[in-house]
This record gives sequence, C-alpha cells and structure tokens, in this order.
Amino acid sequence: MKIHNFNAGPSILPREAIENAAKAILNLEGTGGLSLLEISHRTKDYEAINDEANALMRELLGVPDNYKIIFVGGGASTQFFHIPYNLLEKKAGYVNTGVWAKKAIKDAKLFGNVEVVASSEDKNFSYIPKGFNIPTDLDYLHITTNNTIYGTEYHADIDSPVNLVADMSSDILSRPMDVSKYALIYGGAQKNMGPAGVTFVIVREDILGKVSRPLPAMVDYRNAIECDSMYNTPPVFAVFVVRETLRWLKSIGGLQEMYRRNKEKAGILYDEIDRNKLFVGPAVKEDRSLMNICFVMAPGYENLSDEFLAFAKSRGMIGLKGHRLVGGFRASTYNALPKESVEYLVACMQEFEKMHVK
Amino acid sequence: MKIHNFNAGPSILPREAIENAAKAILNLEGTGGLSLLEISHRTKDYEAINDEANALMRELLGVPDNYKIIFVGGGASTQFFHIPYNLLEKKAGYVNTGVWAKKAIKDAKLFGNVEVVASSEDKNFSYIPKGFNIPTDLDYLHITTNNTIYGTEYHADIDSPVNLVADMSSDILSRPMDVSKYALIYGGAQKNMGPAGVTFVIVREDILGKVSRPLPAMVDYRNAIECDSMYNTPPVFAVFVVRETLRWLKSIGGLQEMYRRNKEKAGILYDEIDRNKLFVGPAVKEDRSLMNICFVMAPGYENLSDEFLAFAKSRGMIGLKGHRLVGGFRASTYNALPKESVEYLVACMQEFEKMHVK
Repeated sequence: MKIHNFNAGPSILPREAIENAAKAILNLEGTGGLSLLEISHRTKDYEAINDEANALMRELLGVPDNYKIIFVGGGASTQFFHIPYNLLEKKAGYVNTGVWAKKAIKDAKLFGNVEVVASSEDKNFSYIPKGFNIPTDLDYLHITTNNTIYGTEYHADIDSPVNLVADMSSDILSRPMDVSKYALIYGGAQKNMGPAGVTFVIVREDILGKVSRPLPAMVDYRNAIECDSMYNTPPVFAVFVVRETLRWLKSIGGLQEMYRRNKEKAGILYDEIDRNKLFVGPAVKEDRSLMNICFVMAPGYENLSDEFLAFAKSRGMIGLKGHRLVGGFRASTYNALPKESVEYLVACMQEFEKMHVK
Repeated sequence: MKIHNFNAGPSILPREAIENAAKAILNLEGTGGLSLLEISHRTKDYEAINDEANALMRELLGVPDNYKIIFVGGGASTQFFHIPYNLLEKKAGYVNTGVWAKKAIKDAKLFGNVEVVASSEDKNFSYIPKGFNIPTDLDYLHITTNNTIYGTEYHADIDSPVNLVADMSSDILSRPMDVSKYALIYGGAQKNMGPAGVTFVIVREDILGKVSRPLPAMVDYRNAIECDSMYNTPPVFAVFVVRETLRWLKSIGGLQEMYRRNKEKAGILYDEIDRNKLFVGPAVKEDRSLMNICFVMAPGYENLSDEFLAFAKSRGMIGLKGHRLVGGFRASTYNALPKESVEYLVACMQEFEKMHVK
C-alpha cells in the first residue's frame, strides 16, 4: 500500500533527494568510494556541497548581497536564545501566535525587556494579529510566519519600522518572498528544506556586533559567517540533503511554481473541509496556513474523531493526528507532498462523509 | 584502488553502519516504505532508535544509574559554553592541553572566574600535565582527554577532588573507562561514535540546577534529560548512525576488544615512527594518543614532507596531512580504522625510507 505522508516535520522530502542521499552514503561522487559520512569537512568535496547549498538558497529566495546565509546545528529552538543574545540590548517586540512564539519570548526575556506587541491567544491562536502598533524603540520585532500547531500563516511579508526577525521554520521556500523586508530569517530545515539536524540563518550583516554583552563563540553569528558555516564541524549529511532538496526545488521551477502547487494543494483540501458536513477548520480563513491544514470534526460529529483517523490510516495516510493542544487533524502539505496525496485524502473524507451523513 | 581513510574527523565508520544508514534512508525497517528522513521523531520508530542508542552507550561505557545520557545538536564547541552556563557559579579550573581546551577556556571566562590549573603550552602541547594541584574550591575541573592536533591523550581516568568535566570528542569509546570518576563527559560524535551532527553529554544529575543564573531552554541540560533528548526535533539521522555504530562496537566485543585493537594499531605505527630514520613523533612517549598519531620528518629530512604526502596519497592513503599548527603528518586511527590500513601505511613509510636513506 502506498503511504501518504502528512507528517508535520520531519516530513516528506523529494524522492530524488532521498535517493541521492542513499547513494552518497555508499559512495560520494568524486571521492573514489568514500562515504559522505567519512569525508572531512575541510575538503573540496564538502566545500562544494556547502557552497552550492548556500548559493541555491540565495538564488531561490533572492537574498540580497548584504545578507549572509549560514547553516548551523541545534534547531530553531536554539535560535530562540541566540537571537536575543546577539540582538537584544534594551527592548524587543514579539508577536505571540502560539507555542513556538511563546518559547521564543520566554528565552528572550533572559536577555532584556520584551514587549508582546500583539497576540492571538484570546482566540486560541486561530488568527494572525494585524494592524497592531510597532514601537519604534525596539531592537527588533520577532514574528513566527507559520504556526504548525494552529494552522495559521502570514501570507505576505509585513512592513516593520524596526528590524524584523522571523522564524520561518515551517514555511521557508514555500512561496516567493521579499527578503529585504527582514533583518534576520531563521528556521529548522526539517520541513521544506531538508532533514532534521540543520538550521538556516539569513541575516543582514549590519545588525550584528551591536550588543554590549560578550558572546560565546558558537552564539556569535559573525564566527559562522566568517568561516562559511564551518567554525566547527558542520552537520555534513544534513547540509548535503539540503543541497539535494534545493536542486529539486530549482528543477521544478523555483518558488513561483512551488507557490502555485502549494496554493493548489491547500485549496483542494480547504475546499473539501468547507464543503464536507463532517469537518470544520478552526483557523480564520484569511490566515489559513498553506503548510499545515488543521481541521476538526464538525459540531455533533466529535465522537467520530478516532474513527476517521483509523479510517485514514487504514488507507495509508499517516501523520494526520492534530497536535494535542488543538485536537482533531492536521494535514501538513509541505513542498514535497504531491497533489495526489491531497486528492487521496479528500476522497477519503468524502467516503467517510457518505458513511456517516445521511 | 582501495582508499585508506586516516581523516581526523568526520572519519571512517564501520562499513555495516554505513550500509544500514543507506538502507534506512530508502526504507526504514518497519515503516512500510518510509525514509528515515521522513519519519516524525514523535513516533515509536524513532523512539526505538533513540532508546537503543542511549542504552548501548550506557552498556558499553558502564554508565552508572545516577548519570543521564543525552544526544543534542550543535557540536562539542557548543558545549564549551553550555558547560559553564550550567555549572560555573564562582570559579572553574581548566587544564590547557591545546586548541580545544583554549576555546573551552575562552567561553568559560564569560560566565565566571577561570583558573588554568595546568598547561603544556610551554612545550607546544607535546605532553599531558601531571601532578598538578587541583584547588578544592572549584565548581569543576575541565580536561580534554585527547588532543587531536598535538596527538596527546590521557591514558587513565584521573582523580579529582572536584567535579571532573571531560571533553572526550576524540577518544570516547576507544577504551574501557570509569565513568564514575567524572561529573560530566561530552563530545561530538564524528570520530568513534557516528557522523557529524550529534553530540553526546553524560552527566551526573546531582550537579545540575545549582547555578543562580537563569538558563535558556536549549542550554539547560535538565530539559533534554526530561524529554529523553527530544525537547526539540533531534538530529534523527545522526542518532540512527550512532546506534548502528554502537551495535557494531558491541558485536566485536565491546570496549575491551576495541581497546586491544586500538593499542595494537597505534603500537604498530609508533614502532615504525621510532624505527624509521625519516620520521619522528613530537609527543612525549607516555602521552602519545592512540587516536591521532602525529609525526614529522626527522631533522635533515624536512624537505621531504610534501613528497611523502604525495607518495602516500598515490597509494590511496588520505587524511594524513598534519594540522597547520604542528605540520607534518597525522594518522587518525579511530575505532573503525582496520589494522590493515595501519600496516599499509607502515609499508609505505618503509618503502619511502628505502628511497631516501642510503
């Protein structure tokens, strides 16, 4: 039975990236028989991988020349404290759109004043706050562009009078974007970009070196920049798979085509959620995520939740269980998920409706 | 031509670990066709991998029950500041045995007083300091058990009246050891334990939670411990390869047999260095590393250095160039390097001697 992988992350990756990773583990091209896992990072072999991954990120996202891109370990959660460590001198602003934003806020408070300038906690994070005032005395404003648990997403690059910092772990590379509107963008790779184990940071260089506190070597972004992401041993394998994933993304037509596909996939599924009498989507329509499509049983049908999950699983669909904080279902429709999987899920929802709605 | 891989890290791994990694990338056993790279870490599949890797570390090293083992991202360099962040309240002692110790010292100074209680810098780090006084008012004493650049190593677990913290990045799992002599042991995996991209920390739990400063979530070891190394998305692939490497280590007979092999390999090579008129080893004999065997051209033959490297390379030997700080050659003889590679190098040294010594 074919598996349809709706995992929220780590998640589905392009098949050719996976196959090329397996090949490189057995024999990295150009090494005469060495495994990708056995090469030194201080070699032309690895430098070529690192350089190409970096250049493809720059090309696909249109990263301006005054920004640097680094690949580091530790996950986006590590950046929750690296960002204030590097950037917070007096006061930072945070928009609270859910669990990840709250974790970022908690760590930032250890380094200075934090003002939560907007929050959607009043309605269980079912929307993206808009039209809020951004104080101009902030060192930076931090947003989380896609909220995996609640299924909400910023659909445009917002304007900010202060340096804008964005956690884009779960929607980077899903649409064309204007990098110049941000001062720093970061995220774990394990959704649209590659496997778990590597994190990207895109940073406008002029914002660095402004805080008065001394920085540990691995916290200071300038060290990673100066060493082309090789201040210490990088996560070699993960960066290789990032390169392969970015090659695939370029080969299909880059972010314009990716965005078209992502809108199409999400549209098919949201249309079905809105049509089907058994399901409803808790997120406000205009803020619905293109990456994590959350839905629950409609009023009166709540008791069918476990049955639908089992029904879907019996048809090869995995990763559909919603986060415990919101319940229900979450279909993650990241870049590499094919339209066929979404259509298959929709057919399954329709079949389930016929079984239960008379 | 067969390649003999003397890389200093990332370095040679057991072939079966590599082959199993490639297989799991194409189809992780028990998932019905999913890639290891596409599974959620919140699944039984990954939990089984993480749990077994953890249990094998505990079994192989004989880790007592009051110690916890965690796998984290970021590399040992990240631990250089995480350790003082978690443990340094007033004063810490460091033994300076080279580049890595110096980096650890530099970061520790950001968190409190640091006393360098011993150093071998006076003789270009060619020995391990011994018989030095350890003040009893230290929060901890930090040592680097193997020094990859200079080829020196502690050959026994030292006694310390204060909590002993050890960077064992490059000799963990190379010999049986007494974990109970340490309060915290850490290291990057990419030598004896697995691929680049994951770091282990073995910590006696009672030493945590004693500092007065607040800790960011990803710095506080207690979070990783509480979540079984899954506070955030772990480096799934790297942990899988660690498990495969540990399985191999257990299958060959564990650390007793590993130690026998490592002593044998190092003995063969050091004997040749001492016998061969062309080469000398700068490290003091009693402190010579079993992992990184450093040697240079003997006086009068310095001009042959590049020629020997090219000669060795032409015979399939890679990774032999010494670190720029010491020059010459470095043969890293980590766990997975077969004796045959050492014998091949020795034959090459003998052949080179015949060409140049009349």
